[in-house]
Amino acid sequence: MATLVLHHQTSPAQDAEALHQAFKGWGSDGKAIIAILGHRNVHQRQEIRKAYEEIYQENLIKRLESEISGDFERAVYRWMLEPADRDAVLINVAIKNGPKEYHVIAEISSVLSAKELLAVRSAYHDRYKRSMEEDVAAHTTGHLRQLLVGLVSSYRYEGDEINVKLAQTEANILHESIKEKKANHEEVIRILTTRSKTQLVATFNRYRDEHGISITKKLVDQSSDDFVKVLHTVIRCINDPKKYYEKVLRNAIKKFGTDEDGLTRVIVTRAEKDLKDIKEIYYKRNSVHLEDDVSKEISGDYKKFILTLLGKQD
Amino acid sequence: MATLVLHHQTSPAQDAEALHQAFKGWGSDGKAIIAILGHRNVHQRQEIRKAYEEIYQENLIKRLESEISGDFERAVYRWMLEPADRDAVLINVAIKNGPKEYHVIAEISSVLSAKELLAVRSAYHDRYKRSMEEDVAAHTTGHLRQLLVGLVSSYRYEGDEINVKLAQTEANILHESIKEKKANHEEVIRILTTRSKTQLVATFNRYRDEHGISITKKLVDQSSDDFVKVLHTVIRCINDPKKYYEKVLRNAIKKFGTDEDGLTRVIVTRAEKDLKDIKEIYYKRNSVHLEDDVSKEISGDYKKFILTLLGKQD
Repeated sequence: MATLVLHHQTSPAQDAEALHQAFKGWGSDGKAIIAILGHRNVHQRQEIRKAYEEIYQENLIKRLESEISGDFERAVYRWMLEPADRDAVLINVAIKNGPKEYHVIAEISSVLSAKELLAVRSAYHDRYKRSMEEDVAAHTTGHLRQLLVGLVSSYRYEGDEINVKLAQTEANILHESIKEKKANHEEVIRILTTRSKTQLVATFNRYRDEHGISITKKLVDQSSDDFVKVLHTVIRCINDPKKYYEKVLRNAIKKFGTDEDGLTRVIVTRAEKDLKDIKEIYYKRNSVHLEDDVSKEISGDYKKFILTLLGKQD
Repeated sequence: MATLVLHHQTSPAQDAEALHQAFKGWGSDGKAIIAILGHRNVHQRQEIRKAYEEIYQENLIKRLESEISGDFERAVYRWMLEPADRDAVLINVAIKNGPKEYHVIAEISSVLSAKELLAVRSAYHDRYKRSMEEDVAAHTTGHLRQLLVGLVSSYRYEGDEINVKLAQTEANILHESIKEKKANHEEVIRILTTRSKTQLVATFNRYRDEHGISITKKLVDQSSDDFVKVLHTVIRCINDPKKYYEKVLRNAIKKFGTDEDGLTRVIVTRAEKDLKDIKEIYYKRNSVHLEDDVSKEISGDYKKFILTLLGKQD
C-alpha cells in the first residue's frame, strides 16, 4: 500500500497559481510547495505541469529547479516526473556515475514489470535520443556489460508456470558457478536475465533447500567486485523487492553520512505504490519507525517533504 | 508497395462458409481456398478465422492443416497468422532447427521496427509461455548467443540523428575487428545490437569510403562460421532490406533444390508490404521476372498460391 496522502484539489489551474504565488519574492515558500505537490498523485502532478505551462508560458520543473536547491530540489524534481521518465533519468545518472551506482540500473530493471521496463526504454529514447542499452553498453565492458545490457533489455515472461526440473538444474549451475568463484559468468547471466521471475524464485528456493544457505548470503561471502554486487541486487530485487527496499533505506540512513540519493529514490518511487509495506518491514527489522530515523538524519524542507511523502499529517 | 490484390468481400461469414464448402468431400478444393484467402488482407483474414470459429465451433487454421499438406499447407498456415505471431513462429522454428537457420532470427529482428519487434516478443510469450531471448539463450553459447540475444532484445532508437564522429570511430572498430579475423566480437556485437539503424548505415558508409570496399563484401571473404553468417545478415538487413530479400529469393530459387521455406517466408511476410519493390529489384538484377522464375521451380496449389500473393491475376 501507498503512503501518499491526497488532499482535496480544486483544480490544476488553482494549484499552478498557488505555486506561482509561492515562487514570488526573495526565496521560495517551501512549505507551500510541499503542501501542494506532496499531496497530489501522479496524474494530478502532470496536470499541474500542463496548467502551469499554459498559464505562465513557463516550464514548471525548470522554475522549481531555479527556486529551490540541494536535496529538496532533487527530490521535488524526481517527484514531478512521470514514473517511466523518472526511471529513465535515474538510470542515465547511474550510467554516468559509474560502477558504484550500477546497482540502481539492476534495481530498476529487476523490480519493474516487462511492460513498465519497456515504458522506461521508450522514455529514454524520447529524452536522450539514444537507447538505454546503447548507453549502458558504451560505458561498460565484458561480463558486467553483458549482465547490465541483458537486464535493461529483458522482457520477461510473466506467467506463473514453474518448471521444477529446470529450477533444479539451474540451481546447480548457479551453485557451481559461485563455488568456483571464477564464476561461469555466461550461464549465470543467461539464467538471471532471461528466466521469468516466478521461475527464478523457484530456482533460488531450490538452491536454499539443497545447500542450506540462501544464494544471496553465499554471494556476500564472495569477493565483492562490481559484477557480484550487481548480481546480488538482481537476486534480492527478484526474490523480495520490499525487503530489498527496506535494506536500501536502512543503509542510506544508518551508514556514516546519510545517502540522500538512495533515500530519495526509494521514497519518491514507492510512495504511490508500496511504501506503507516497506515502512512496516522497516519497523519490524529495526524496532524504530522509519519516520523517526529519517527525522534524525535530515533537515529543512527536504525533511518536511520526505516525511510528507511518508504519510505524515500536519 | 504491396503485391496483394484484394477482391470484393461480402462478409467474413460468407468467406467462412465458402471455405467450409471447399473442405467437403474427398480432398480439398485448393483453388477455392486460394481464391478466398489469397485476396484478403491481414485484418480480413483474422475476421474470417473468428467467423469460422463462431459458425462451426472449429479452429480454421487447424482445419486447414488437416485439409491440405506440404509446402502449400505451410504457406497458407503462415499466411493466416497475424504478422507478429507469424514472426514468433518463424523464430521459434529457427531456434529449434539450429545454426543453419539463425540468419532467420537475425533477419526478423533486424528488419522490424522497435515496436514491431516488441509485438513479436509479446506474441512469443502468449504462444510459448517463455520469452524469446530465453529460448535463444538456452540453445546457444558464447558470442553467437550474445549477438542473437542482443538482436532479439533490441529496442533501437529511431530518430534520424547521426553522430558523424561516432560513425568514424565505430567504422574503425569494425574494420580492426574484421581485419584481425579473431574479431573483437564484444565491440562488434555492442555496435550492431545497440546503435540506431540510421547511425549504423552512416557507419557502414564511412567504412566503405575509408576502405574502398563494403563491409559485407569484406565479411564474405572471411571464414564463414555461424557468427559471421549472422553478422552478415544483420548488416545487409539494416543497410537495405529490400535488396536483402531479393537475394534470399534469388538463392531460394537458383540454388540446387528450391528452398521453399525461404521462398515462402519472404513472399508471405512481404506481400502486404513491399513485395512489389522487391520484384522490381529482382527483375533488374536477374533480367527475369520473379513470377517466371518461381513458375519454373514449384508446382501445384503451392505454386498457384505463391503466384497469387505475387499479384498474378487469373
